[in-house]
Amino acid sequence: MSDNPIHEIRRAVVLLSGGLDSATTLAIARAAGFDCYCLSFDYGQRHRAELDASVLVAKALGACEHRVMHLDLGQFGGSALTDSSISVPVDGVQPGIPVTYVPARNTVMLSLALAWSEVLGSRDIFVGVNAVDYSGYPDCRPDYIAAFEMMANLATKAAVEGAWLTIHAPLIDLTKADIIRRGAALGVDYALTVSCYKADSLGRACGVCDSCRLRREGFAAAGVADPTHYAV
Amino acid sequence: MSDNPIHEIRRAVVLLSGGLDSATTLAIARAAGFDCYCLSFDYGQRHRAELDASVLVAKALGACEHRVMHLDLGQFGGSALTDSSISVPVDGVQPGIPVTYVPARNTVMLSLALAWSEVLGSRDIFVGVNAVDYSGYPDCRPDYIAAFEMMANLATKAAVEGAWLTIHAPLIDLTKADIIRRGAALGVDYALTVSCYKADSLGRACGVCDSCRLRREGFAAAGVADPTHYAV
Repeated sequence: MSDNPIHEIRRAVVLLSGGLDSATTLAIARAAGFDCYCLSFDYGQRHRAELDASVLVAKALGACEHRVMHLDLGQFGGSALTDSSISVPVDGVQPGIPVTYVPARNTVMLSLALAWSEVLGSRDIFVGVNAVDYSGYPDCRPDYIAAFEMMANLATKAAVEGAWLTIHAPLIDLTKADIIRRGAALGVDYALTVSCYKADSLGRACGVCDSCRLRREGFAAAGVADPTHYAV
Repeated sequence: MSDNPIHEIRRAVVLLSGGLDSATTLAIARAAGFDCYCLSFDYGQRHRAELDASVLVAKALGACEHRVMHLDLGQFGGSALTDSSISVPVDGVQPGIPVTYVPARNTVMLSLALAWSEVLGSRDIFVGVNAVDYSGYPDCRPDYIAAFEMMANLATKAAVEGAWLTIHAPLIDLTKADIIRRGAALGVDYALTVSCYKADSLGRACGVCDSCRLRREGFAAAGVADPTHYAV
């Protein structure tokens, strides 16, 4: 029991991509007792099968509500995930920030989660950034998440009224194998999830993009059977 | 001259609503020598005449480019500006956070400006938050802007590579009268701007909402003729 009555509501906004990490994050939020309001984005990504997956994942894991918000990040370009003139790399994970990085994506998505959380009276936002992403994407690092939380706590009417908002990133220091073990223990059906940057319209994975490689290696390292539908 | 070659580009993203404050902010950014890329949002606001105004203002003040991004903040509700079931107050400015506050609006808009700035190679974002808004909206306060800037400098690929991003809020400690004097000196044609929360389709102002009251009082205090088109 919290002293803060707003916390009694126990509503959380969960960013849900339809991939492995966010599905696990939703399962963790549910296991912690939150009523979960899932938010997905149609942001012009190539891998639109993710969105179909997000609908199935939200339902399977008992979300209270799931919204898919249209957001034209593709109009800014600058990423292989939203700009068809930039190729998705398939030759293995390289050092440095990959071309699949979408400018300010997590900041934009967390901001919209913040807007919805304020309307819902929720003071908890869950996001599935993790230690593997950490090596490549700047907006997956712990100090970034901490800075977003600090900003969010100055941004809103609820913050002014004294209710602390927490950005939960429960995967942040886990490896892909740790995440898969955790999700499997919570009953996540990873066959529903799509991680591939180049998934076909049936949700089948290419097996060679960075996301597929990290996922496949994760199942192997976790000792969990890989239920991914591969196209080849 | 900066030591940082990225700053030589002198591109700035300017958040432009079509109102008095953002028009003045754009004029300030232009006077400082920036090539200005203006970003406006169709976010389900009642006062859509603002958007028509933003097109005229961007053109009149020599913006390089102007984009109007669709963003369905109205789907979250929670504000008199986006939810038709909540009335816009017309009985005078009251203490506290008004019902015209849109949850996390500035955070969402600054986040999208951050995304565009990264693609443009810009390290400067201008936003027209000000001392008058400060009294009511949490996301117009100086400590909020500082926290956003800190977060932004951890969020992006450019930040990781060492280029500092500045959030310029040149109006933040100005009164409405100061803003009007400053803009008038820079040649802003305020007849093009629309501030009213309830402007009609021709851009004519109601004269009685909070925004109209602050604007009208500002012109009077500045000793500048008020060019606003009032409906009554």
